[in-house]
Amino acid sequence: MKQRIAIDAMGGDHGVAVMLAGAALARHRHESFEFLLVGDEVQIEKALDNHPGLRSASQILHSDKQISGDVRPSQAVRQSRGTSIGMAIDAVKAGEASAAVSGGNTGALMAIAKLALRTMPGIDRPALAALLPTLRDHDVIMLDLGANTECDARNLVQFAVMGAAYSRILYDFDAPKVRLLNIGTEDMKGTEDLRDAAQQLKEAAGLPMAFEGFTEADKISSGDIDVIVTDGFSGNIALKAVEGAARFVTDLLKRSFASSLRSKFGFLISRPATELLRHHLDPNNHNGAVFLGLNGVVVKSHGSADAKGVANAVEVAARLVKHDVTQRIVDDLGNFDTGADAPAQKRAV
Amino acid sequence: MKQRIAIDAMGGDHGVAVMLAGAALARHRHESFEFLLVGDEVQIEKALDNHPGLRSASQILHSDKQISGDVRPSQAVRQSRGTSIGMAIDAVKAGEASAAVSGGNTGALMAIAKLALRTMPGIDRPALAALLPTLRDHDVIMLDLGANTECDARNLVQFAVMGAAYSRILYDFDAPKVRLLNIGTEDMKGTEDLRDAAQQLKEAAGLPMAFEGFTEADKISSGDIDVIVTDGFSGNIALKAVEGAARFVTDLLKRSFASSLRSKFGFLISRPATELLRHHLDPNNHNGAVFLGLNGVVVKSHGSADAKGVANAVEVAARLVKHDVTQRIVDDLGNFDTGADAPAQKRAV
Repeated sequence: MKQRIAIDAMGGDHGVAVMLAGAALARHRHESFEFLLVGDEVQIEKALDNHPGLRSASQILHSDKQISGDVRPSQAVRQSRGTSIGMAIDAVKAGEASAAVSGGNTGALMAIAKLALRTMPGIDRPALAALLPTLRDHDVIMLDLGANTECDARNLVQFAVMGAAYSRILYDFDAPKVRLLNIGTEDMKGTEDLRDAAQQLKEAAGLPMAFEGFTEADKISSGDIDVIVTDGFSGNIALKAVEGAARFVTDLLKRSFASSLRSKFGFLISRPATELLRHHLDPNNHNGAVFLGLNGVVVKSHGSADAKGVANAVEVAARLVKHDVTQRIVDDLGNFDTGADAPAQKRAV
Repeated sequence: MKQRIAIDAMGGDHGVAVMLAGAALARHRHESFEFLLVGDEVQIEKALDNHPGLRSASQILHSDKQISGDVRPSQAVRQSRGTSIGMAIDAVKAGEASAAVSGGNTGALMAIAKLALRTMPGIDRPALAALLPTLRDHDVIMLDLGANTECDARNLVQFAVMGAAYSRILYDFDAPKVRLLNIGTEDMKGTEDLRDAAQQLKEAAGLPMAFEGFTEADKISSGDIDVIVTDGFSGNIALKAVEGAARFVTDLLKRSFASSLRSKFGFLISRPATELLRHHLDPNNHNGAVFLGLNGVVVKSHGSADAKGVANAVEVAARLVKHDVTQRIVDDLGNFDTGADAPAQKRAV
């Protein structure tokens, strides 16, 4: 089966040109990719003049409405009909596309996707999972990053299963190393829900992962962990704190280099080193946050992503479709049994 | 009145020598400082041989027991009698010292201090406040960082008052800029407690601060905020995430510089720049986390701090004593009135 990916051509800070350049780059790397380009037909046609390869692999779905960046999720759902995000998601729902990629309003995309595609069987709440750079040669997956402000133990266990499935698909890991984000690594640390979730994962049989307990937030980028599981509030705090601190250090470095003539000269000479740093930290190389737990693949490209970033997001979507992430999560949930919890649940019924 | 600071000489990863070297450095800078050195008399006497200035300003309080790093807070409280932490805190309680500084087990110090000194009038729960580096010429104060895993709106409002008092004392700001840490800046973002706290601070009269709403975690180091208020769980996650990311970027940078001969040469030339970066990020320059909200000043020095770091922690303690942080918080609480909340509370009575 050919993969057909719906692109919300109107999302993203840089507009149609960058979204299509990204799709074209992904298509250039993977000849089997096909696209459904959703958005203003005139603008799309014009942008396609630069990308004959993409044009030959694409259909256009005209939409003359967009959801702006400052619309609340609840409003977005009401306004979604006929918008580029709404039509891209509807195409997934109708089976006309196997995945949707958008660079638009995250909250709106999440709310529209959840309403249209519905949460998949066995999962109570979908979660937003992103990739963060590490000192090793692969990124770490962190979820949830803001879809759910408050989460209970059951949600966290499900996030662990979804994150592990994503990690196995992305990196071919047999048993990804999974940890729960906490304020200490001892058993008694953190909230009751965190301790419950850890207990369930520790005692579960048939786990499609290596559950290794808690981690503190200073180990996120260590590369020793493949999947970090957290509630959406803490996850968002951790993600933003990492982004802010990385920018802070690189800003300081720039200032330091500019502080004297000698330093400026040193900077020029060590250009390859600072370029390597820049490449490693470039969000475009880690672009593509995934909504896991829906009946369909939906990927959020960062609003400020460039063509390379959009291409990465498209490739993430394609990989999740190819390896049928939804079915894999269903299978994983069927195979594993949280010994501690199941009898209690039965008693409760 | 001369200031007398109780030093837990046994706390800290590097032992008596570093704790006393730190005290000696602080004394060298401030001739009025006096010390009560709590710990093993023989070890302290030996270390004092290197610091005649400190010896002339110090009394020794012998303790032959210590609380180890892995003891739980609840155990620590039971074992505290006669330990160096316990006796340093008791000296504050008895008025024999005006502040205590320890580099020992944070949870133990917090629990022992809370039990002995009690929470001050008008405050429901003490909070741990630390200093983080920014792009400006002053640090940002963040609290709570782990004393309270879960906090309600009332706690957060009190933390804001305490953090603002600390900021005014430390930096002589008239009205420090205060924000609540959240996952977005719009009014409807985050938990109900966060929204409540923001509402109360927005509507309060006589605020000893400029309350500016919410901030996301990527702005922590921007220098645009003087005090960041959060619950202990999120605060700990944010603090550790910032520390981890800063280390990650500097590790990457080291690797990048080592990646080629040319880069190594560039590194040597730009040494002043990277030294400036190192200086700015050095935790010793931001050492001294304060327990705010107790009847007495208690400062936690980082376990790995060097003499310069310990001296900073001692100076923070002295400054809080000199400006009577406890009385200042009492006054601030008396002056300000959260218009929205007070009538409701009266009705509830």
